[in-house]
Amino acid sequence: MGVVIINFKAYREGFGRNAYKLGKIVEEVASKTDDYLAIAVSFLDLPILAKELNIDVFAQHIDAVEFGSHTGRINAEMIKEYGAKGSLINHSERRLKLADIEFNVSKLRELGMVSIVCTNNVTTTAAAAALNPDYVAVEPPELIGTGIPVSKAEPEVVENSVKAAKAVNPNVKVLCGAGITTHEDYVRALELGAEGVLIASGIVKAKDQKRALEELVGLR
Amino acid sequence: MGVVIINFKAYREGFGRNAYKLGKIVEEVASKTDDYLAIAVSFLDLPILAKELNIDVFAQHIDAVEFGSHTGRINAEMIKEYGAKGSLINHSERRLKLADIEFNVSKLRELGMVSIVCTNNVTTTAAAAALNPDYVAVEPPELIGTGIPVSKAEPEVVENSVKAAKAVNPNVKVLCGAGITTHEDYVRALELGAEGVLIASGIVKAKDQKRALEELVGLR
Amino acid sequence: MGVVIINFKAYREGFGRNAYKLGKIVEEVASKTDDYLAIAVSFLDLPILAKELNIDVFAQHIDAVEFGSHTGRINAEMIKEYGAKGSLINHSERRLKLADIEFNVSKLRELGMVSIVCTNNVTTTAAAAALNPDYVAVEPPELIGTGIPVSKAEPEVVENSVKAAKAVNPNVKVLCGAGITTHEDYVRALELGAEGVLIASGIVKAKDQKRALEELVGLR
Amino acid sequence: MGVVIINFKAYREGFGRNAYKLGKIVEEVASKTDDYLAIAVSFLDLPILAKELNIDVFAQHIDAVEFGSHTGRINAEMIKEYGAKGSLINHSERRLKLADIEFNVSKLRELGMVSIVCTNNVTTTAAAAALNPDYVAVEPPELIGTGIPVSKAEPEVVENSVKAAKAVNPNVKVLCGAGITTHEDYVRALELGAEGVLIASGIVKAKDQKRALEELVGLR
Repeated sequence: MGVVIINFKAYREGFGRNAYKLGKIVEEVASKTDDYLAIAVSFLDLPILAKELNIDVFAQHIDAVEFGSHTGRINAEMIKEYGAKGSLINHSERRLKLADIEFNVSKLRELGMVSIVCTNNVTTTAAAAALNPDYVAVEPPELIGTGIPVSKAEPEVVENSVKAAKAVNPNVKVLCGAGITTHEDYVRALELGAEGVLIASGIVKAKDQKRALEELVGLR
Repeated sequence: MGVVIINFKAYREGFGRNAYKLGKIVEEVASKTDDYLAIAVSFLDLPILAKELNIDVFAQHIDAVEFGSHTGRINAEMIKEYGAKGSLINHSERRLKLADIEFNVSKLRELGMVSIVCTNNVTTTAAAAALNPDYVAVEPPELIGTGIPVSKAEPEVVENSVKAAKAVNPNVKVLCGAGITTHEDYVRALELGAEGVLIASGIVKAKDQKRALEELVGLR
Repeated sequence: MGVVIINFKAYREGFGRNAYKLGKIVEEVASKTDDYLAIAVSFLDLPILAKELNIDVFAQHIDAVEFGSHTGRINAEMIKEYGAKGSLINHSERRLKLADIEFNVSKLRELGMVSIVCTNNVTTTAAAAALNPDYVAVEPPELIGTGIPVSKAEPEVVENSVKAAKAVNPNVKVLCGAGITTHEDYVRALELGAEGVLIASGIVKAKDQKRALEELVGLR
Repeated sequence: MGVVIINFKAYREGFGRNAYKLGKIVEEVASKTDDYLAIAVSFLDLPILAKELNIDVFAQHIDAVEFGSHTGRINAEMIKEYGAKGSLINHSERRLKLADIEFNVSKLRELGMVSIVCTNNVTTTAAAAALNPDYVAVEPPELIGTGIPVSKAEPEVVENSVKAAKAVNPNVKVLCGAGITTHEDYVRALELGAEGVLIASGIVKAKDQKRALEELVGLR
């Protein structure tokens, strides 16, 4: 019922063969649940995963440039050509300037792709909502990677982010992230009005990734 | 009636003794008009100008940091201690990450100071309005420094920026900038719903700065 | 005899299917000449090109991070796993901090990969040489993409860069770039002491890419 | 005998009235020792301190731009006009791109000012030396602010930095920093071949700043 976006980051456990292996796990679990499961992977893994897997594959970042003299840059058209569904934008580990977030959101929309703008608090969530992305994912930076779930530690951040975003733009959907690991954290996020969660270490760094994902979506 | 913020940038004509001279001109013209005239100056000029001039002095930028181990950074408290009224934030020549814009706006508000967030189009203006600054100043980057006034070349940008900003936050005031030079450009901006203008080269690089400013506010 | 590194940038003509097509052209021309021809491609194209082509494939950029919580980042190990020979570092369109250049050069060396540090003048070439990369590629930014060849317009930059680099580190090899298009430009670069050239638009944006490359290496 | 540069950073204890107070302390201690004592202060404090104090005052950072359309930027000419002796460049809290470090060093030299380029290890120290600054100040980032002195914890970094820098450029002088607090740390730095130290929290955050500085230079 909810949305689960798994961010592989630059984790060794989420790169290369490990990315493929984890992608297959997500694909399998996705076939057993009504939740929407998708993954955000490195540029290098994206082509093969988008081709081989029967789940949506997102980029973790795109640069706010057109085709041209931009050495080392990857734009929205480029990830589209390789089968990406969309991209994370402005993750706390890859913050962008406001004008560049807007550029990317508009470009993805124009290309029929899905944008997920990450934010750090209620106010920036409202601002991001005004850019009309598909999703805003609010993640208090101080909780990222801690295992302390935002939906329990700071429920008001999730609840108020949903309200603030909807007030600005009723079409936008809100995800939350940071510290999410258990099914309870996930359910709590949905109860608070979020459409789902953005999760990374809770799955990617888990000893048993499949078990961790199954538990998250309530299959265990 | 309107608001005129003059950005001295890093122009030689707006720095050091020239900054002082131009500041005195602005002070004099301000005493003869109902318009609100203020200046945005370099960090080095700010202490003396804020002390000596009988007009509001803004910083051109602040860094999104607290006091601490931040070599080469200037924060909101620091400019306040030296008498600044507030600061420009996110000028097109000094773009900031979304989270940092929000940090600066919140901090200035907390300190009772005035924030002017610069943006590049209608959509980012709406987003900036959600951060609850005092002003959003929309400036299409392609017109900055051209002498082609945004209020004539792209009136819809101004008009729609005002509408979009007010829809998100009725308290926010909108300025426009880029290419403004004449009284007509300024009046047109006000007619389009802006509270005033952000101007730089039109005054600072003018052969006769006083005449240029007097013309802008309709004293000639 | 010389080295020719072709930078595909984010040119549409050097991305996706076009990258593959151009890669095959370079492979074919490489088989007919004694010059060393290699390509620098986007992260998305790198996996397939490194696998399919019988020439060395470089990344255009790498981030100075280890594996870990680095959303949207690609490091040296990651491009190695996908078959890259090495990477451009600090291209004028992707400038890096000094500490990050050093990190990348050291990491590539540790991994047995090839580093090509781009610089903008004689002095920064000497500095880059001190980092002990395999190559330093000097490119006066004002000539990039102009068709005005550095080896003719500013021969002293090439000559002095070679001298300055060798004085600091005799093992480093110097390339030059910016405006290179003809065989004459290339030969002139070698005469000035460079080991070869870094070229982009001269090949990638050429109407007939194959002809342009053949002409460059003197096969026509 | 040695050189002591005190970096006030954005410490509350080193800003505004506190900066003035600490500046007077440094001035007084400087009058009682043969060591060369200088301070690096915020842009806002620089004008008054450079005017009022009888010691050399440095900026903590400069931007690599000429006069012009650069909102919120401070260049070398600007700090010179307000009496700065020179500037720190590339501090670990304000890292710059290689091309910008070179720009700043060249510009300061051209203006007859003093440049102090900060680096993080032996290799980047050698690279910085190639840019021909007056000083390179090597500071292992992991020791900054720890109170664990680089001259004792990693003496080989200091010693090898001096050797590497001199090999590239015999004219360059090497400072070291990170964790320096006691006279012993300082003397050890000189014994290792450094010309002096770059120090911040050890003085600025000391309960008794005067006593701390007097102890550092051996007056107690």
